[in-house]
Amino acid sequence: MTSTFDVAILGAGSAGYACALRAAQLGLSVALVDDSPLGGTCLHRGCIPTKAWLQAAKVRRTVAKAGSFGIGAELTGVDAKGVRDYADATVAGLHRGLSSLIASRGITVITERGSLVPDDGRGPGIETGAIVHRAKAVVLATGAAPITLGLPVDGHRIITSEEALRLEDLPSRAVVLGGGVIGVEFASMWADLGVEVTLVEATDRLLPAEEPGHSRILTKELSRRGVTVLLGSTVTAAEAREDGVAVTIGDEEVSADLLLVAVGRRPVTEGLRLEAAGVSVSAGGHVAVDANLQTAARGVYAAGDLVAGPQLAHRGYAHGLHIAERVAQLRGRPSNATELPRDSDIARVTYCSPQLASVGLTAQQAGPDAEVVDYHLTGNGRAQILKGAGGRESGVVRLIRRPGGEIVGVHLIGDDVSELISEGALLVGWQAAPEDLSSIVHPHPSLSEAIAEANWALAGRPLHMHR
Amino acid sequence: MTSTFDVAILGAGSAGYACALRAAQLGLSVALVDDSPLGGTCLHRGCIPTKAWLQAAKVRRTVAKAGSFGIGAELTGVDAKGVRDYADATVAGLHRGLSSLIASRGITVITERGSLVPDDGRGPGIETGAIVHRAKAVVLATGAAPITLGLPVDGHRIITSEEALRLEDLPSRAVVLGGGVIGVEFASMWADLGVEVTLVEATDRLLPAEEPGHSRILTKELSRRGVTVLLGSTVTAAEAREDGVAVTIGDEEVSADLLLVAVGRRPVTEGLRLEAAGVSVSAGGHVAVDANLQTAARGVYAAGDLVAGPQLAHRGYAHGLHIAERVAQLRGRPSNATELPRDSDIARVTYCSPQLASVGLTAQQAGPDAEVVDYHLTGNGRAQILKGAGGRESGVVRLIRRPGGEIVGVHLIGDDVSELISEGALLVGWQAAPEDLSSIVHPHPSLSEAIAEANWALAGRPLHMHR
Repeated sequence: MTSTFDVAILGAGSAGYACALRAAQLGLSVALVDDSPLGGTCLHRGCIPTKAWLQAAKVRRTVAKAGSFGIGAELTGVDAKGVRDYADATVAGLHRGLSSLIASRGITVITERGSLVPDDGRGPGIETGAIVHRAKAVVLATGAAPITLGLPVDGHRIITSEEALRLEDLPSRAVVLGGGVIGVEFASMWADLGVEVTLVEATDRLLPAEEPGHSRILTKELSRRGVTVLLGSTVTAAEAREDGVAVTIGDEEVSADLLLVAVGRRPVTEGLRLEAAGVSVSAGGHVAVDANLQTAARGVYAAGDLVAGPQLAHRGYAHGLHIAERVAQLRGRPSNATELPRDSDIARVTYCSPQLASVGLTAQQAGPDAEVVDYHLTGNGRAQILKGAGGRESGVVRLIRRPGGEIVGVHLIGDDVSELISEGALLVGWQAAPEDLSSIVHPHPSLSEAIAEANWALAGRPLHMHR
Repeated sequence: MTSTFDVAILGAGSAGYACALRAAQLGLSVALVDDSPLGGTCLHRGCIPTKAWLQAAKVRRTVAKAGSFGIGAELTGVDAKGVRDYADATVAGLHRGLSSLIASRGITVITERGSLVPDDGRGPGIETGAIVHRAKAVVLATGAAPITLGLPVDGHRIITSEEALRLEDLPSRAVVLGGGVIGVEFASMWADLGVEVTLVEATDRLLPAEEPGHSRILTKELSRRGVTVLLGSTVTAAEAREDGVAVTIGDEEVSADLLLVAVGRRPVTEGLRLEAAGVSVSAGGHVAVDANLQTAARGVYAAGDLVAGPQLAHRGYAHGLHIAERVAQLRGRPSNATELPRDSDIARVTYCSPQLASVGLTAQQAGPDAEVVDYHLTGNGRAQILKGAGGRESGVVRLIRRPGGEIVGVHLIGDDVSELISEGALLVGWQAAPEDLSSIVHPHPSLSEAIAEANWALAGRPLHMHR
């Protein structure tokens, strides 16, 4: 049996469902195929529940330092199941909203496992069981899954982030393997929730994609909160035991209740029969695409984590939207097809404490002639208010411009800086010069003033800044 | 005795000290005259301590709802003196930084009461005691002070915001007169700190400068937290008594511990001998200025709250910087003199709960042809995370564009939305069209995505939005 659509999408995560929504909006008929619930990793096992756990951690940190704001409060414990219930409720609410939105746009949702079918002259297709869904365009959006590096993950003592979000009891001691975004977020969160954490990273710094100075600040802040940060270290073995896990780090054996393996995520392509349909997959598992995200097979596109680059839900959205607009354009519909945003123009946020957020090039990427300004949040009124009496402030705003030219990098570290990076994305995406921003008034007192201050300095006129 | 400067500034608040910093940076010699500490109302009696109290209120609110995040916590009371100490410490730290910055720029600080002296051919001047400080340009920046509407303010039972920030004990019951920014911030803060608050506003809504719909949401949210909001009401009399204050609201007498009079602030011009120097002052007390903030007296400028318009510290900064650049330009120095930002392009933030932040025109100001989109934060993942399990979300992002044209208004209400308005200021200040913003990727999950969603809808392509 064969059914026919304008677009058939394999994977209902951020990239897939965004593509479906926009394609339907542009008047295309759409099939969205996934055997997992709408929303994918981000909504169910990634961004959303993780950020909920991080918010619970922030609440606990706030309670613990309430006295420094003049508020009397006592911690009476962490109810891990309660945190999970709150995270689950948040996910459930968003899932309800998304499902109703998908339904309202007339998208055909097929809750089955699918695989790619080569073009037989009627277009490529997605096969689910005995049915082939032919389409003018097929979009591969199956996302990524945790790498385990051969460690004996049992989901109990040796776990990935997916099990970590399902815990009903917090460990007393945990080893987190991996100093990338996921590892750092869990280490920070667990430390705030009272867990004794050892964080193990193979390279010489945490969050290697960020500014080295910001990695150092983060390491210092985590260490102050009791996290043992081991850089240039690897876990060579791990053994689950009745009462915990024995983790071999270099020559040393460390006992803990849990080992969280957070060493990255690999594209999910197995069983999709991509090569048979003419789609090329790299050794790293990524699907090869052109500038419009089309694979080597005509009419077959790939989006999101399948495409080499930063693994970010909002990059997935951008991919999905781009493909939908592109396909509509090819079908002769009025669309807003524009160039795909460059990966470096897409903002990156790590929701640990302190938060890191950045967009554009690092100072090293921008080259030796680039002009760099660091503005320290010690001078920012709002940051001083947020930290409470006696708190330290280690946050920094770094702006980078080409010599005499446009802003090419915005790099932030500090409490609550995540919301500031959309301004950075505008500056970098629009190739604004500091002089363009100088006349824009930022409200006082706000953290966003720190961007204005750094910008004034970059334009040669620092205001609240010592030389 | 006479001393001579390029610029002499009367008033060391936001407008005055910003002017001093920039003028010194541009190579001008500067005198800064004020008998009060550097930083003025904003730093010592306004924005900064108020936002610190509001932050303490937020901490108490967070503790009170910690359970909905799975965190066990008990409130053990509010130490009002402790809140004040935290606010004072914040102010003191920022004051130290500012003082050292002013000193490092070689600015002559004169801690005296000053008044204006007419131009005698050597330029206008500021007189302090027996000394006249002549300058090529004099800048008036004496700010504003609370209006009391003839009510018998005694600083004890009937107070202004200045005394409210000095309280060592919180009242059990308070009446707040005035539903503008100051009144609303105190009502929200005190309610969160456990005070029974009655908020009295003469017009038919709170924050009359904001979108009417947002005023309604705020009223509802304050009411839910126990604030009695009386609109279209006035306080006709108040009498301080031994054990409290009797406040007559319309026909009714209400007993309370405190009456806070927050009905606005009037420019401080008394005793400055402005008219004698040829400076015009309006009936409302504002100093009349031209497009470059020059008064009717040549070489005499006015800045900040002395100039009719919104009373905002960051507007004061912008004024001060503009005058410094302008004077440097007239003195033949290289400067970045640009047009003064329009008042409507300056963002306004009210730090109550929920926060309001806006920039540009309201829908009514933009006219009947304007296109308006409201995006509700119920659909925003980050907002859902921040509210905790079972919390309600009433926040809204409103964007307004001219028909088919640029974005002219951004209006936000919701928890923690204040930091988003700098993006709004860029959009409005740069006259961006929704289509310009459509390709800028906002990070997920962030509150800033709500601006992207509203913008997509305004561009005719809503993504996560029901029609």
